[in-house]
Order: sequence, then structure tokens, then C-alpha cells
Amino acid sequence: MNENKWNRSHILGLVDWQEFEYDILLETASSFREVLSRATKKVPALQGQVITNLFFESSTRTRSSFELAAKRLSADTLNFSPSTSSLSKGETILDTAMTYLAMGTDIMVIRHQHAGVPQAIAAEMDRLGNGVSVLNAGDGQHEHPSQALLDLFTLCNLLDSETPRIGLLSGKKIAIVGDILHSRVARSNIWSLTKAGCDIHLAGPPTLLPELFSQFVPGKITIHRELANALADADFVMTLRLQKERMGEQLIPSLREYHQQFGITRESLAHCKKGAKVLHPGPVNRGVEISSELVDDSSLSLISDQVTNGVAIRMALLYLIGTLKH
Amino acid sequence: MNENKWNRSHILGLVDWQEFEYDILLETASSFREVLSRATKKVPALQGQVITNLFFESSTRTRSSFELAAKRLSADTLNFSPSTSSLSKGETILDTAMTYLAMGTDIMVIRHQHAGVPQAIAAEMDRLGNGVSVLNAGDGQHEHPSQALLDLFTLCNLLDSETPRIGLLSGKKIAIVGDILHSRVARSNIWSLTKAGCDIHLAGPPTLLPELFSQFVPGKITIHRELANALADADFVMTLRLQKERMGEQLIPSLREYHQQFGITRESLAHCKKGAKVLHPGPVNRGVEISSELVDDSSLSLISDQVTNGVAIRMALLYLIGTLKH
Amino acid sequence: MNENKWNRSHILGLVDWQEFEYDILLETASSFREVLSRATKKVPALQGQVITNLFFESSTRTRSSFELAAKRLSADTLNFSPSTSSLSKGETILDTAMTYLAMGTDIMVIRHQHAGVPQAIAAEMDRLGNGVSVLNAGDGQHEHPSQALLDLFTLCNLLDSETPRIGLLSGKKIAIVGDILHSRVARSNIWSLTKAGCDIHLAGPPTLLPELFSQFVPGKITIHRELANALADADFVMTLRLQKERMGEQLIPSLREYHQQFGITRESLAHCKKGAKVLHPGPVNRGVEISSELVDDSSLSLISDQVTNGVAIRMALLYLIGTLKH
Repeated sequence: MNENKWNRSHILGLVDWQEFEYDILLETASSFREVLSRATKKVPALQGQVITNLFFESSTRTRSSFELAAKRLSADTLNFSPSTSSLSKGETILDTAMTYLAMGTDIMVIRHQHAGVPQAIAAEMDRLGNGVSVLNAGDGQHEHPSQALLDLFTLCNLLDSETPRIGLLSGKKIAIVGDILHSRVARSNIWSLTKAGCDIHLAGPPTLLPELFSQFVPGKITIHRELANALADADFVMTLRLQKERMGEQLIPSLREYHQQFGITRESLAHCKKGAKVLHPGPVNRGVEISSELVDDSSLSLISDQVTNGVAIRMALLYLIGTLKH
Repeated sequence: MNENKWNRSHILGLVDWQEFEYDILLETASSFREVLSRATKKVPALQGQVITNLFFESSTRTRSSFELAAKRLSADTLNFSPSTSSLSKGETILDTAMTYLAMGTDIMVIRHQHAGVPQAIAAEMDRLGNGVSVLNAGDGQHEHPSQALLDLFTLCNLLDSETPRIGLLSGKKIAIVGDILHSRVARSNIWSLTKAGCDIHLAGPPTLLPELFSQFVPGKITIHRELANALADADFVMTLRLQKERMGEQLIPSLREYHQQFGITRESLAHCKKGAKVLHPGPVNRGVEISSELVDDSSLSLISDQVTNGVAIRMALLYLIGTLKH
Repeated sequence: MNENKWNRSHILGLVDWQEFEYDILLETASSFREVLSRATKKVPALQGQVITNLFFESSTRTRSSFELAAKRLSADTLNFSPSTSSLSKGETILDTAMTYLAMGTDIMVIRHQHAGVPQAIAAEMDRLGNGVSVLNAGDGQHEHPSQALLDLFTLCNLLDSETPRIGLLSGKKIAIVGDILHSRVARSNIWSLTKAGCDIHLAGPPTLLPELFSQFVPGKITIHRELANALADADFVMTLRLQKERMGEQLIPSLREYHQQFGITRESLAHCKKGAKVLHPGPVNRGVEISSELVDDSSLSLISDQVTNGVAIRMALLYLIGTLKH
């Protein structure tokens, strides 16, 4: 048990999270993971509360994961998606949020293609003093905290499934490979993994990983242009999704060359520490950032675990912010 | 308590509503508004009933409001939207409705771009004698009863939140401003507000408010071409959304000129009675039919209240028609 | 009661179904049909289970029917549709399925435009030994078992609503009319109706019903080019939806000629046995494969019954596979 108490009402980014917050979350997620293994996977914790998914940027897996997490806490859910939206009628983002707020939303899960939108809405909720919470489900190239937290849970759970805690990762070497520049997943992971005391090594071509990026957390990040150097003795490898549009933008020469230089395969894992495992946030481009063979090898890939832990982490986040005010 | 009993199974339009019906509805909505302020915002009233949203014309806010109202009455909901519909496969509207009926729908909430569709489906349900109710969520430029009822509830609730009743509005002066011609919201509001004994003043350019419109309820409506005249001594101002397409149709010269002549601002409210408040059905075009400043001023704008009351009114409507047959 | 026990975990097609399986299903559906006639139409049978609708090919009525069936068994539902999908991001079908699996899906209801997709996913679930069930909601031109099962239930229920069983159809003459070639509904129906011992007569133009089709179940099928011959003394007539694209593909000369030759009307029913009734899987093209008058005549058409029975059959299928493992 932690002596510190949970006191955060919005989940906007991991930049300012403290160690005890990670530990309370991991402990909570661990108990929900146990709930998910039962025949009846529901708890009545948030019955009667309304959780609204405001996904201005569309997404299948993240929305479904949040929706399922909400249902398993017995909350009611509303889904807003841009295709059926008032946005085409000229309504502002904040006005859309205010409408769902006025309907009785207790927690807003917000994804937007521009950085800062969830933060702006959270600030407005605080100004109004209405006690409504905002959870950032991905904002531009800024943060995607629930993804980094499920990655963290996956790693800690692997090291000690009884008592997952952030301290377990101290001194571990983690390689993050690919399009770091455009990745909110990478940014959020860097915040949590540096707090955990990990040794972080990034690999990617200069167009997707500028030299300047080492200043993101000065002194904590090493940049590599050779994949093998980043992987040397790594405990874990995080691959990132390569958006194929990057080729059209002339940021990579071809998918094939990208795979040859930065694609993770069973062979490239040979550079890592024995037993090193691979994470990927999904959806996967097989044969681009990761080999198809590796995706399918559950002794080496944690992809499926990440998805399962995603529901548990989102239940834990919704539970902690949803029960804070009562 | 009312001596008259609720006896209406469809909500198609307000043209023929009687005073006691408004009062039963307002009383019911008032009790549901109290439910919405509790931590657990659900009641089991319609458990096991199926409410189907048949939105042939897409809508975010109205569909979400009905969906949430249904969930809070513990009903099961189905959503039909045209993008994933059988309509592209050549099915008639009535056949689509009959399909959802055969699946076990108890209440159909119907929105359609053409006037008369909910009425036609309700007539067919009556002919079949199946006890299924139809609720019009907006048909063409005809009626949008639940919107006018939430407006009515918002006004009456402001005047007496303990016992909101239609009689409270007797003799009040109400200005309705903007595109009256194309507005089903305005039409439904005119029915309820004339029944309430309000003094109704309409303002708008001739293209959006033809002189002939005064015959809509002869002797009850005054038409103004100068906004200031319509607002003079008004107790409440209802602004209407201006669809920007009206410019392309050459019905207005420009959005800017429209705003100068008929946009409601803090300054224009100076013409009204002291303490006059503004309503808007949403979504808002800030800086067109209403100034941005006014939208954000909760001491003058009732917009947020309208959205909240919308859930309560829709709960009340679904409850009254859903419990009628038992 | 049946002595044999239900032992099938996936519903992929009817090609290998045994008589006792049909009978257990019909008995179960019959009891759920009774549930649907109550005021509270829910049972807690699958509470806490997750049923995911993976509709790679979009569909209104089938998805709604499955969704409602799942809700009435108190399961939680997730909906995946291609418009908001990761498929556009290059994810494979199997990876999409694996994602929903990892989230905790217990039963996957899968529709896909290509034959074999549900089977491939079911095989992967079996290989993984995770106990997850797959229900085929239509794959290409291959099978659509739940539609054929609701047709079977509709017929048997008509003959004996107390104890519907497949044996009731032995020796009955059934005409199936229209675009047999492209119809997964027809294929699944042929499997169940031949197992029932029906006498099956197909009618359609050579482009939509090649001579070779008689080899589909050798010796059990008679092909007719004249509608009247197929209908002669028939007990039941199944019409199939004609996709209007078939005209563009030059498979039919015109919709009008098609209707004249193969459209089912009140007149064409005169060829059948007295009291013969018509089925149609919907959505209907009025005046093409069936006359509008016939659709609306509930003394001759079973269309509405089919939709109602569809919810009961899908509840029965989900119940049988969902309770198998416990």
C-alpha cells in the first residue's frame, strides 16, 4: 500500500507524474487485470456515471479499449466521432465539449489531431469548477499517456506480476526504434521510462529522429543511427508504427529500405540481452517496422499482452479519477 | 398534481398539445432533472424496453441526448444511421422502420430531412395496433417538438424551479430571431409559446421570414424587419442557427452583414427588459447569429441549461409514452 | 428434450450440421421467443461476457439483430466497422481480430465480403486454444448460417409453435427463386433444408442460376427456368434479394423484365399449394423480386416474422456457444 493518496483529476500527460502515482496506478491496474480473468468481468464502481469518448481523430482500437473499460466499470458511455459531428456545421471544439458536459458527462476521453486540445478543455473544466475530468487519448504529436502507461504496466507486470511497480525498471536498458519525431507514444514513454530510471536508447533515420531530440530530456537519451548499437544489451525494444505517408513526404526512401535498416526481426533481437522482448503500440505494418514472424511469436512479442493490459490500465485510470471526487 | 391523465402515445408535433399535457411533462421533467443531479443518475423505469434511434438525417447532439435519456431510464438502445444503412440498397423508409419494429422496438425516435415521415410511420403503427410509439426528433422544416419542449422547460424552470408550469409564461414577450422560414425549432416553439399565452415577435430579413409567415398563427405573431423593434421590452430572446448554405442560396448577402443586422450581442440585449436571457438550440455559429461573448456569458445565455434540460425532457417524454401502455 | 448435447463452439456454416443440433437450437430459440414477448425482455445469461461485432462488410439489419440479441442476454457489446477502422492503416484482418481478442472478447460475430474469413479466424482461435467462439454473419457468397436458421425457425414455428423441430419439414416442397449464384443465404438454406428432407426447387435465369448449380447437392435439387414450374404445389417460397448492380454487370436485361419472369406476386402464389407463404431475407426491392402488395400482406408474407425470429435465433446461438465452455 502507498502512503501517498491519488490526487490527480485529469490525465493529460506524463511529464509531471511522480513515482507514487505510477505505483498506485500499477497496483490498481493489477487488481483489475485479475477481474478481467473472471467469468463475469464487471464491477459496479462507476455505475450511473457518464463517460464520453470525444474522438475528433478517429481510432478503432483506442476507442474500443476505453469503451470496454468504461462498460466493465458499469458506466454509461457516449461516443462522439467526427463523421457524424456538428463540427462540419461550424461548431468549435470547446462548444462540442461543453455540450457533452451539459448533458451530464463525468469523464471526457479526448483524442485530437492537434496537440493541446485535451489540456485546453481540462483548463476550462477547472475554471468552471464542475469536477469533470479529462483523459487525453492522444493529442497531435504531444502525449498519449494511457498507451505509455499500458506499456509500463506490461513491462513491470512481466518482472513481478504480484506487485508491479515502477522501481522494477531502474537501470533497465530500453531501445525505442523508428519514427520518434511524429510519435506521441514515444514522448509519453520517455517521460515514464526516465522517471523509472531506465537507460533510453533511440534509433531511427535523421528525418524521423533529429539530433536535437536528445534535448527532449537532456542527459537521459542516447541517439543512434545504427540499429545494432541501440539494441546492444537492451532489455526491451519498443518499435513504433511507421505511417506509410512518411514515404510520400520524402522522409524515408522506401518501406523496403526502412525495414532493412530499422525493422525489428528475430535476427536483430540477437543484439539484445538474452530473453529481450518487443513491444509495439499497434496497428502493426507487418514487414515494415517489425517482421511478420516476430509479431506472431508470443515468446518474443508482448503485443497481445499490451492490448489486454490496455483495458486494465484504462479501467484503473477511469476508476481513480472517477472515484476521486466522492 | 394534475387531474388530467397523460394519454398521448406518439410525440409528433406540438400543434395540438393541451395545457395539461405541457404541465404533466414539465412536472415529470422536473423530477428527472433532480435525478440527474444525483451521483447515480439512473432509474429502472424502462428496463428491458428497446428504444431505437432512426436518424435518417444525421445529428450528433440530438441523438446523444436521446441515447443518454434512454440509458438513464435503463432501456436498451439501437442506433440506425444512414451511412451504414440499407437505404442505399433501395429499402423504403417504412420498410426500415418495420424491420426495427419486428426486432422488438418499443419506441422509435425518428429524424428525417422530409416533413411528415414520423407521422406516416406513427400512422402505420396505429393501423397495426402494435402499441409502438413514435417520437419526432425533427422532420424537415415542420416540427422538432423535443427541442421546443426543452426550451419551454428552460424558461419555466427559470421562473419557478419548484413547480415549472406553462402558465408562468402568460403575457411574457418573446423575440425569435433569424431564419424562421427554414426552422422546425421555431415552428414548434410558436405552438407551445402561443399556447402559453406569450406575446411573440419575430425578426429576420424577408428572405428568411416572409410577410406571409404572420398567418402561421393569425393574430398571435408580429413580424419585424428591425431587430431593435422585436427586442423592445422582450423577456426572452431565442436566436436560431443560420445555416451557412443560405448564403450560397442567395438568401443573405454575407455572414457579416447578417450579423450586423440580426446577430444578438450584449448590446442588442440592452433593448430588452432588464435581465432578459438568450436561448439558442445549438450548434452555435459564433459571430454569426450570436456573438461569441454572449455565448460564453452564463449570466445572459441559457445555452448550457438548454442542453442539460434536453436530457431531462427526453427522459420525461420517453417515460410518459413508455409507461402509458402498461 | 434431446439426448444429444450441444457441442459446437463456432457457427461457421450449416454444411455439417446434424439433425439434433438443429433441434436443440430450435428448442432454445423457441424459449427465447417467449422471453421477447414479455415486458422485460432480458435474461442475465451472458452477463460480463463480451460479444464483438466485426463487420468488415457493413450491414444495418444483421448487426442490429446481433447487437440486440447480445444485449438481451446482458452481454457487453463492441462494434467494429470498416469506416472507422485500422484497416485503412494497413492492419491485416487477423491482426484486427487478435486485437479484439486480446481486449477480452468471448464471442466474435464476423461478416466479410470474402468467403472463408470467419473460418480462418476460428481456426486461429482453436490453434491458440483460447476458447473464443466465432459466429459467421455472412462470408462472401459462401454461407450465412444465422439467416438460414431463422428461416428454418420461421417455417418450423409455423408448423408447430409449441415444439418446433426440423423433422416437421420432411417432404415439404420449397421453391427458392432468384439470384441463387451470388446468394450465401440460398447456400446455407440448401444445407438446412436438404437435411430436413425437403424437396428443393430453384428458379432463376441461367446467368444467376447456372445449370451446374444442381451439383451443389447432387440429386437433391431441381432447377427450373419457368417460375410456374418451380412454384407448382410448393409449400413455401423463398425469394432472394436482387442486387441492382447485376443489371450493370449484364446478368439481367432489366429490372422490369426480371420482375415479369421471376418476381413473386399474389398471382404467382396461385401455382403453389393453398396457404403457401413467402419468405424474403430483406432488405426488399419492392416491385423487383417481390411485389409491393405481397410484402404488405401479412397473411401471405413471413418477412416480419423472420426479423422477429432472427433476434430469437441469434440469442439462442450466442447462448449455446457462450455457455458451452462453462
